[in-house]
Amino acid sequence: MSKGTVVLAYSGGLDTSCILVWLKEQGYDVIAYLANIGQDEDFEAARKKAESLGAKKVFIEDLRSQFVENFIWPAVQANAVYEDRYLMGTAVARPCIARRQVEIARREGAQFVSHGATGKGNDQIRFELTCYALYPEVMIIAPWRIPEFYNRFRGRTDLMEYAQKHGIPVPVTPQAPWSMDANLMHISYESGILENPKSHAPADLYLMTKNPEDSPNEPDVLEIAFKNGVPVRVTNVKENKSEDTPLDIFSYLNEIGGKHGVGRIDIVENRFIGMKSRGIYETPGGTVLLNAHLDIETFTMDKEVRRIKQGLGIRFSELVYNGFWDSPECDFVRHCIAKSQENVEGKVQLSVFKGQVYILGRESPKSLYNEELVSMDVQGNYDPCDASGFIRINAVRLREHHRLQGFSGTKK
Amino acid sequence: MSKGTVVLAYSGGLDTSCILVWLKEQGYDVIAYLANIGQDEDFEAARKKAESLGAKKVFIEDLRSQFVENFIWPAVQANAVYEDRYLMGTAVARPCIARRQVEIARREGAQFVSHGATGKGNDQIRFELTCYALYPEVMIIAPWRIPEFYNRFRGRTDLMEYAQKHGIPVPVTPQAPWSMDANLMHISYESGILENPKSHAPADLYLMTKNPEDSPNEPDVLEIAFKNGVPVRVTNVKENKSEDTPLDIFSYLNEIGGKHGVGRIDIVENRFIGMKSRGIYETPGGTVLLNAHLDIETFTMDKEVRRIKQGLGIRFSELVYNGFWDSPECDFVRHCIAKSQENVEGKVQLSVFKGQVYILGRESPKSLYNEELVSMDVQGNYDPCDASGFIRINAVRLREHHRLQGFSGTKK
Amino acid sequence: MSKGTVVLAYSGGLDTSCILVWLKEQGYDVIAYLANIGQDEDFEAARKKAESLGAKKVFIEDLRSQFVENFIWPAVQANAVYEDRYLMGTAVARPCIARRQVEIARREGAQFVSHGATGKGNDQIRFELTCYALYPEVMIIAPWRIPEFYNRFRGRTDLMEYAQKHGIPVPVTPQAPWSMDANLMHISYESGILENPKSHAPADLYLMTKNPEDSPNEPDVLEIAFKNGVPVRVTNVKENKSEDTPLDIFSYLNEIGGKHGVGRIDIVENRFIGMKSRGIYETPGGTVLLNAHLDIETFTMDKEVRRIKQGLGIRFSELVYNGFWDSPECDFVRHCIAKSQENVEGKVQLSVFKGQVYILGRESPKSLYNEELVSMDVQGNYDPCDASGFIRINAVRLREHHRLQGFSGTKK
Amino acid sequence: MSKGTVVLAYSGGLDTSCILVWLKEQGYDVIAYLANIGQDEDFEAARKKAESLGAKKVFIEDLRSQFVENFIWPAVQANAVYEDRYLMGTAVARPCIARRQVEIARREGAQFVSHGATGKGNDQIRFELTCYALYPEVMIIAPWRIPEFYNRFRGRTDLMEYAQKHGIPVPVTPQAPWSMDANLMHISYESGILENPKSHAPADLYLMTKNPEDSPNEPDVLEIAFKNGVPVRVTNVKENKSEDTPLDIFSYLNEIGGKHGVGRIDIVENRFIGMKSRGIYETPGGTVLLNAHLDIETFTMDKEVRRIKQGLGIRFSELVYNGFWDSPECDFVRHCIAKSQENVEGKVQLSVFKGQVYILGRESPKSLYNEELVSMDVQGNYDPCDASGFIRINAVRLREHHRLQGFSGTKK
Repeated sequence: MSKGTVVLAYSGGLDTSCILVWLKEQGYDVIAYLANIGQDEDFEAARKKAESLGAKKVFIEDLRSQFVENFIWPAVQANAVYEDRYLMGTAVARPCIARRQVEIARREGAQFVSHGATGKGNDQIRFELTCYALYPEVMIIAPWRIPEFYNRFRGRTDLMEYAQKHGIPVPVTPQAPWSMDANLMHISYESGILENPKSHAPADLYLMTKNPEDSPNEPDVLEIAFKNGVPVRVTNVKENKSEDTPLDIFSYLNEIGGKHGVGRIDIVENRFIGMKSRGIYETPGGTVLLNAHLDIETFTMDKEVRRIKQGLGIRFSELVYNGFWDSPECDFVRHCIAKSQENVEGKVQLSVFKGQVYILGRESPKSLYNEELVSMDVQGNYDPCDASGFIRINAVRLREHHRLQGFSGTKK
Repeated sequence: MSKGTVVLAYSGGLDTSCILVWLKEQGYDVIAYLANIGQDEDFEAARKKAESLGAKKVFIEDLRSQFVENFIWPAVQANAVYEDRYLMGTAVARPCIARRQVEIARREGAQFVSHGATGKGNDQIRFELTCYALYPEVMIIAPWRIPEFYNRFRGRTDLMEYAQKHGIPVPVTPQAPWSMDANLMHISYESGILENPKSHAPADLYLMTKNPEDSPNEPDVLEIAFKNGVPVRVTNVKENKSEDTPLDIFSYLNEIGGKHGVGRIDIVENRFIGMKSRGIYETPGGTVLLNAHLDIETFTMDKEVRRIKQGLGIRFSELVYNGFWDSPECDFVRHCIAKSQENVEGKVQLSVFKGQVYILGRESPKSLYNEELVSMDVQGNYDPCDASGFIRINAVRLREHHRLQGFSGTKK
Repeated sequence: MSKGTVVLAYSGGLDTSCILVWLKEQGYDVIAYLANIGQDEDFEAARKKAESLGAKKVFIEDLRSQFVENFIWPAVQANAVYEDRYLMGTAVARPCIARRQVEIARREGAQFVSHGATGKGNDQIRFELTCYALYPEVMIIAPWRIPEFYNRFRGRTDLMEYAQKHGIPVPVTPQAPWSMDANLMHISYESGILENPKSHAPADLYLMTKNPEDSPNEPDVLEIAFKNGVPVRVTNVKENKSEDTPLDIFSYLNEIGGKHGVGRIDIVENRFIGMKSRGIYETPGGTVLLNAHLDIETFTMDKEVRRIKQGLGIRFSELVYNGFWDSPECDFVRHCIAKSQENVEGKVQLSVFKGQVYILGRESPKSLYNEELVSMDVQGNYDPCDASGFIRINAVRLREHHRLQGFSGTKK
Repeated sequence: MSKGTVVLAYSGGLDTSCILVWLKEQGYDVIAYLANIGQDEDFEAARKKAESLGAKKVFIEDLRSQFVENFIWPAVQANAVYEDRYLMGTAVARPCIARRQVEIARREGAQFVSHGATGKGNDQIRFELTCYALYPEVMIIAPWRIPEFYNRFRGRTDLMEYAQKHGIPVPVTPQAPWSMDANLMHISYESGILENPKSHAPADLYLMTKNPEDSPNEPDVLEIAFKNGVPVRVTNVKENKSEDTPLDIFSYLNEIGGKHGVGRIDIVENRFIGMKSRGIYETPGGTVLLNAHLDIETFTMDKEVRRIKQGLGIRFSELVYNGFWDSPECDFVRHCIAKSQENVEGKVQLSVFKGQVYILGRESPKSLYNEELVSMDVQGNYDPCDASGFIRINAVRLREHHRLQGFSGTKK
């Protein structure tokens, strides 16, 4: 007699394989669900593995295009950066995965969803908030927060032992002394030897980007065309190669960014649950796009709209990092940001070289840049005398303040 | 019969030399004031030139240490960046120069100050707001906003002609086809051929930073020690060389940053007066410091304090860019930011290579980072079950929202 | 030979009558334009007066419905309040007036617009920014900023004398010792004896609201129905009377609010130009609506959307106060706020009595209020244990902070 | 064998009396702690009751002066208002109570604290976050979140029965059909019949304020003197009576505010845990002070400092409402706000009448108000021509925007 059906976010790895078997042991029917969001994985092998472990059904879902269009693109529009540095490749992917998980659960009549995220991290929150938001009655089984699970599996050794006992194929390659999460947007590295914030990351850690010391000695020059604040075409100027679907554009930017070692950061960040953690990230294509988008946006957007939108972008980033992608406030902010992007259109030229992105120039049919107005050589419908009044009126308040300070005898 | 005394912000160049003579022509006594804020200049030659042009007095003031300690350091504490990219080397320098100008004017009994800033730019505002704030009765002569001046001098040719007629030494080297402003913090390039936002900057434009294509193939590794959010020591780890006064620290960071081509940007920005302008900047030492400070700040500062402080830093940047350094609100914001830095203390290791700064590790006696708490391997006074409650309470609102959507029949 | 045509914002009063004649004296053709935005005025008498003074054409425009729908309603949606107290009846009206003025100028081929606003106030800015925004080539004649005008007319006596000389009818009633601006939304009082911020306003100053000491001893009870964040019907519960067009609703709220002395404030505010000024305002209908809208909005809007929207509302208020109604940023903010109002729907019951508005109850088909969930008597799909985890996770950061304080020996 | 010692926040009422006995039943030693924060209570009777129920020790602590000086005053400086209406009398009191509770627990060597707050409310969070922040190792017993407790006591009847069985004195007066929380700052009413958001509150609900229909027909006129943004003296102008210690000032404002029915609100608010709840509050003295402080603050504070401080005040209000009084971010914000109040000094005259507070006038030795500068009758060191330049420069951006719109063919 089954306790019910669980849709498990399955990765194909040791942890979620053990969870699959454990859930069955607990009396659940398990549907294994594996999202292809661009990670390097043998999806067919994973399917067979899940089936062999007793999954009732297995869903392998290619979400790559959706991931780019519905998740990465809004992040690009927002210039989404958490705590001034992190482009949030993981945070952006989680709701994409969880949305489909919930769809499957509803369609298959499953009352439960499950995942292998740990109890100290952000990902548990990101998965679950999307699940609760879109499927409020769902029940969530998070084994790493269930004492009988986490007390039984206190380390990798316990998992290995359990795997061997239950016929779960065990990884043959030795595990890296850190954990890793990969998708189309980035790879993150944390835990293990990286937990000491002082120790340097090993040079061979990075998988998505070349070490800039070994990257080409010649830059690539790209032209990225934007419309509504998202890229619609990327062209390699020298090679005269171009891409124009979202997935192809982003993949190509990853390729070029990765080739030149772009987008590596090593940070300590603040998790939603109030801990500081050390994370190392590589986001090649996203970093190129952030730079290009900042350029075309400021080129085409009104100054004061930009200021307001900048604040919304920061709010968006916090919401996404904390797992609130599927919330009324994030819907609202996304709507407002999308509105702000209506004129963000044009082309940016940039070079990519040795870990850096250099903006070279930009043009737009919708630019508010007025070469004549700003020129030092021509006057261009501008009366410099106006600036005197502008400055003097701005000084009214400052002079009054000084008057008061004199009066009250205080010094600056 | 003199119309009064003017303290002129004198650069030694063609423009302000002509202004000096023109002011005398108009009937003023002129005091020439030249601030040394780290630009590459023959100050003694400039003194002689000003004297020979008829300056009543000449003041050459070495403000470099003040510039670093009282202006650059607060900008570092604030992570001051305008419109997400510009580190504001010019904006930070202007109030430093103007404060001394006002001091001299008061001390010398001058009722007037003058400068050579143009009528379309930000610098006129930055100079004048500080002057009005600290010397409210002062009268300002801005020749580039006086029709009889700017109609007479419509271009460089007019200035050259006037110079020749009045015995003003004329530059022998041909002028670059752009204008430039240099100080200890950065060099900015704008105007001329750069006014076309699409055209690429020439490779030989930059004076403060090496072209990354030609920079060393070996990184330098630095350790920067911070206290109260400002650097107190920089050490070149391999060379075992260190500096520990503000001016020496900043100069050394410029040297290393410049050697590796760090801190070049090409942007279109929004001026305070509402125009978009294209600027190219190189800020080697400032860029290294921004990266290092962001790291140590997030490492040591509480998450929520950081969020509030981030907002204040953005406000600070806008105020400084717009010329309000000497305003009650900027005083207030600086005070708040300084308060936030009390625990920002520790050491950051980083490497500088080919235009990039890579954070390698950090340590602090005041860090809120708790290796045991965050560890994936030990539990560390943390109960994962708590996270379930945390997530479920955060979901209360999201589930209610979903309930309403169902009720009202609307779809996401 | 005419210098061109001016569209003058004409009030019918002494100042703009003199300006009309003076403009003609200066060689302009003058079109008099008088907007009816609900002020108490004999519009036909004003038309005749303008014609008799030599206006080429006279336009009397009834903008009352537009004023309510396109200007007051967005302010209601925004909970627009400047500096926590002022509902901005004047600021909201100015762009309404100026938009039509610009339309007339374009249609009539006039290159000039003119107004009688003073040189120290906000209204000049509000008029002119809308004019420049919608008719960038327009030239503006602001006599109170033209030395030959304001030096000639140094006070009311000079205007009276000029009027008598030029056959301008002179007001027979003595002028109040303050100035006043009235429209459908409010009356403002300032200047004259009110300039002393310490002196109390005379009891007979107010024209739109009863003195609460003399107002009825029985409250009126109203029910206001909202849709999309704006009122769609008001009902007087006891009298069973209701109104349902925007103009009628707002007029009725003015009537009831005025009868009970609602909406009087006496404040010192900060003008855009940096001066503090003392203003006294009465905004009866607007005050009732602000209270009702705050209630229904919080009842129906998600908590976090509300927080973001609150910030946008403050920004909107500053923009409107400063005269930027017709700016890209105000367009943007209005769009975002309107989006936030999609579910702001329902009915609010309130009583109006002796200067106060008391909310009594509310209901909505779109409320996020869940009586069962919040009940102290039933559990309602809520597990109180979750709160323990929620609190403990929120405390993680606070406990870490305490740890650091102990470590560093500092005390709170 | 005792399980340890618990310091219980004891109110003297039925709930916490039952909790006291229940905790003993569970094996704890119980210290009863009752804070006097101005509620109407027979403290000696409560002491005897606690002793008779078996409390090991009883602490009755008069925190009224501390409550005013350390909690209400900072809220006054911040203009603390939650969601635009609620003055947070409960939220401000909780950390005051919890701080002493923690002090007692530390001093008495108690490892546990306990309280009678429910599992759906904000107060549990406010109590516990302060406890965890100041005593990180403390363990908290919240019976209303413990299944064996809340399943046993499902309603008042269960508590009454338990009381009778254990010799706990049972209230003889019938309970009001709502719950209530009172302190020096306010009384709140919620739950029971108030849970229906549409139903009107009964007229006899309010205990702290007169019904305005029955309040005096003559206003009282007060003058409140401020220094550093807090009141230092209140004077009843007609009666020539004054108070000048914090507790006396606040108590007197409560008396006068209460006499005239000031400070009643009926709202639906968003709890931290994401529910909407209906609350009715009366805050007489706090409402008078909020009005007076807003007046003197705007009178004396620079416009732009005020804008930044307004944002900090909103953040402060959210933090306090959510229970983060004792957090690093709230410390930081309080520090910044206190800094902003250094010049907030002067006297405000106001009248209190029929539920309203009317500001009448104000004066200050530190005002930035400049009567001559703002006067319509004298020019006062202000050149109206400057305003033309100011406006035209502000319009640069708006005209450019219009140019673009024309270009792209879009219409507003």
